Amino acid sequence: MRREYDIDLLIGKFKEKDKIALARLISIIENHPEKASDIFKNFNHIKHDSYIIGITGSPGVGKSTLTGAIAKRLLKEGKSIGVISVDPTSPFSGGAFLGDRVRMTEVSLDPNIFIRSLASRGYRGGISRAVLDITLLYEAFGMDFIIIETVGVGQSEFEIYNLAYTIIVVMVPGYGDAIQMQKAGIIEIGDIYDVNKKDLGGADIAAHIDMMLDDSTFQGGWRPPVAMTNSITGEGIDELIEYLYGHKEHLELSELLRERKRNRFAYKVRELLYYKIDNVLESLISPDEIKEISKTAIDNKFQIYDLVHDLFSNVKFERKKDD
Amino acid sequence: MRREYDIDLLIGKFKEKDKIALARLISIIENHPEKASDIFKNFNHIKHDSYIIGITGSPGVGKSTLTGAIAKRLLKEGKSIGVISVDPTSPFSGGAFLGDRVRMTEVSLDPNIFIRSLASRGYRGGISRAVLDITLLYEAFGMDFIIIETVGVGQSEFEIYNLAYTIIVVMVPGYGDAIQMQKAGIIEIGDIYDVNKKDLGGADIAAHIDMMLDDSTFQGGWRPPVAMTNSITGEGIDELIEYLYGHKEHLELSELLRERKRNRFAYKVRELLYYKIDNVLESLISPDEIKEISKTAIDNKFQIYDLVHDLFSNVKFERKKDD
Repeated sequence: MRREYDIDLLIGKFKEKDKIALARLISIIENHPEKASDIFKNFNHIKHDSYIIGITGSPGVGKSTLTGAIAKRLLKEGKSIGVISVDPTSPFSGGAFLGDRVRMTEVSLDPNIFIRSLASRGYRGGISRAVLDITLLYEAFGMDFIIIETVGVGQSEFEIYNLAYTIIVVMVPGYGDAIQMQKAGIIEIGDIYDVNKKDLGGADIAAHIDMMLDDSTFQGGWRPPVAMTNSITGEGIDELIEYLYGHKEHLELSELLRERKRNRFAYKVRELLYYKIDNVLESLISPDEIKEISKTAIDNKFQIYDLVHDLFSNVKFERKKDD
Repeated sequence: MRREYDIDLLIGKFKEKDKIALARLISIIENHPEKASDIFKNFNHIKHDSYIIGITGSPGVGKSTLTGAIAKRLLKEGKSIGVISVDPTSPFSGGAFLGDRVRMTEVSLDPNIFIRSLASRGYRGGISRAVLDITLLYEAFGMDFIIIETVGVGQSEFEIYNLAYTIIVVMVPGYGDAIQMQKAGIIEIGDIYDVNKKDLGGADIAAHIDMMLDDSTFQGGWRPPVAMTNSITGEGIDELIEYLYGHKEHLELSELLRERKRNRFAYKVRELLYYKIDNVLESLISPDEIKEISKTAIDNKFQIYDLVHDLFSNVKFERKKDD
């Protein structure tokens, strides 16, 4: 039984492209973040880069089916794909309807794809920590593409634009309206917009988004295109994939891909620093002290800032300069 | 013009129940968290407690209309109410449809209610910091009830159950299904469940929730009731309010209200500590250093844990014991 937890053995199998080893390493990294560093040490010689795609949008717009349709197209080209789904209503995680789940299962049987869904809470060090580490595992595994599927901006615990190189924002006709999207800041983050479920109409909303994009300015000279798809029939997927390759090429030809990669790792660095600081905090201030202060605050609530200030006032910190 | 920013003057007017002064103080607290402590100093003598209600559910279930209907009922009883809406699609924040907005405006004209909506991002120190501070302002103002309206669990940046004493979870017939809710953890946090839009049916989902509740165990001896409402016609609101008072009484008669209050302040204490530590981090490690490490990580991504470890290794924290 001990063998199941033998990391060296798992790493060996992982390097032979064993998907079961990949699955186990993901589980280890999910549940034991302190082991991530040791696992990654084994990959120092690997230079492979995956291209990371983010697919985001409100619940119910068909992100998972679209992810499935895109994956199917890329698989047909001979690409390998790692999927991370961070959507509690995703069919990948057992939510949604049977029809969706059947479609996803069909795709997931292909040997060149690996799909992992994460519950959106309860991860030690946070969901973004887990997602970041899984992208690294997928890269070490040699995936050509990584697709991260997540619920809309501002609703999710982590921000997809810090992780992915191409962001596809998915919408459906009649769901809210375009002005609301603008408000929600979605119009600022997409590299490609996709109006899905085009059988329900969608020319109007596509035109509206186009109009808003015309009024916007774009950094780096990329004007986000607006695609229209039906992810169930596959209609429009070719065009969407074309846009995807277009954006990928745009990033590669400019310095922008490097910038997005740097952004991704800066995000990870900040995450790790927070995690360390969190541990420091726990070691300095005990749960009992927090409990005690909270009790005091019940009858002195307007002094809560002062109470915490006092608690923190005798914490000293310094950074030794390098010798 | 300087007078507009004279906090003493604002506090004076605030104590005379001036709603414009309340609005200004909220704005100050939203945008200048460092001033919160000074503002709250003026309230040290105030012993008033508000009762805090949380209303949560997915987008589109009618949380805002329900908030309006509950507020209307409480206003009729002569209660004063402060509303905080943390939902980008809420009519309070200008989202949603004209009909909703008109209904809300009607309620909001009552002198005993004050409504504030927050965008769900971009607050210094985070949205939960702002929400917590606004509840304190409402309490100092003397509100009988505070209603916090927020999108569903796991989708929001802050967790409503750390703030409110009674949580009402709102659902609608046909939106997802009850099993999904159980998965999403919603079934664990409600003190009251409400199936809204009962004109669309709902007996089935109400029965399903009831069944799930029968299978659950409850801390503190409260078995959450399931209400059915139509927040537009007002149908079922009386029953819902009855449940609300029932739960309030249950908490008051037991030690549980005190426990929820303690929980609320413990959350605030942790928030403040994080904020302080965040400032420390910024003072110790510069953005340039993070940028530099991120650049290095582009070509050495599997060493990212080690890179951060090195960066942090010469940072020392200590806490001086009290003399």
